[in-house]
Amino acid sequence: MKKFEEKTITSNTIFTGRVISLKVDEVQLPNGKTSNREIINHPGAVAVIAITDEGKLLVVEQYRKAIERSIIEIPAGKLEPGEAPAVTARRELAEETGYGCEELTYIQTFVTSPGFADEVIHLYAARRLFVLEEQAQLDEDEFVELMAVTIEEAEAMVADKRIFDAKTAFAVLWMKMQHLSNSPQRN
Amino acid sequence: MKKFEEKTITSNTIFTGRVISLKVDEVQLPNGKTSNREIINHPGAVAVIAITDEGKLLVVEQYRKAIERSIIEIPAGKLEPGEAPAVTARRELAEETGYGCEELTYIQTFVTSPGFADEVIHLYAARRLFVLEEQAQLDEDEFVELMAVTIEEAEAMVADKRIFDAKTAFAVLWMKMQHLSNSPQRN
Repeated sequence: MKKFEEKTITSNTIFTGRVISLKVDEVQLPNGKTSNREIINHPGAVAVIAITDEGKLLVVEQYRKAIERSIIEIPAGKLEPGEAPAVTARRELAEETGYGCEELTYIQTFVTSPGFADEVIHLYAARRLFVLEEQAQLDEDEFVELMAVTIEEAEAMVADKRIFDAKTAFAVLWMKMQHLSNSPQRN
Repeated sequence: MKKFEEKTITSNTIFTGRVISLKVDEVQLPNGKTSNREIINHPGAVAVIAITDEGKLLVVEQYRKAIERSIIEIPAGKLEPGEAPAVTARRELAEETGYGCEELTYIQTFVTSPGFADEVIHLYAARRLFVLEEQAQLDEDEFVELMAVTIEEAEAMVADKRIFDAKTAFAVLWMKMQHLSNSPQRN
């Protein structure tokens, strides 16, 4: 889909970092005028909705410097260069929770901030979890605390903003929807 | 919540743009070691799940330079300095769709990319829509095409990735959930 395409006139890389890079593109708008677009490039990420046999959701609390607070999120992490998203999903699940899964299902992919960033998140559901014998290592600058929460607990965390990011907000709705769809008294 | 807090040692502003700014903070980790965090500051935004009296969702197609394609999103836009989110919500709904609403309900707020950005989206539901007599103006670098879609059409757009961003993915799930909860054959 290219409707209202903005053609690049010039592209100026401002910063290349460890995780993100920033460029400013001068573009030609559909009406012929020009404008600037400030764009963040990001390697992309996966996130995992991991559901225990008891129907609980695995979440991790971690500090997020960008918002100067800790929040509770579903396990997630960046794609390594050339790594297939399903591999990243299993790796991040292992690193952040210590679990493996016998069942990994692709849900969908979305961009987080299309107004200024190309970051995509590939979302997976993990079921039939088992404790890994060998503990996977977190990145050396990563500190997380694992919890398993019921739908009701997750909804309470949304209400009081402990759960506060888009992918986890989506995950809670998705889990609720699965529950509604499968609930025997509703069929 | 400050668990695993990362204390700022130095903060270095790299870029200050029209929409976003970029800084690199050197931080002290919980284990005493140091690391760098690349952080985007953003003014924040609102998004509106606008539902017509026929139960259709208002969406707009627009080109997103960051991902070099056009996608279909719920109406959204950045907060102006000092502007209350509910005011932004009505303004963006007017600008992007030409509709006002008699009912505007706050749903929730989430950050889009907590790993590197502080962008929040305040999400509202708009109902009892009416056509505004005076057409609001889009920003001069903004080109959008309005559509009203059923839940089934929105789900098809998710499946073929025309709907491809987190807030709109959330909106489609949210709308589906409202529908499931209110559906008479299920009560």
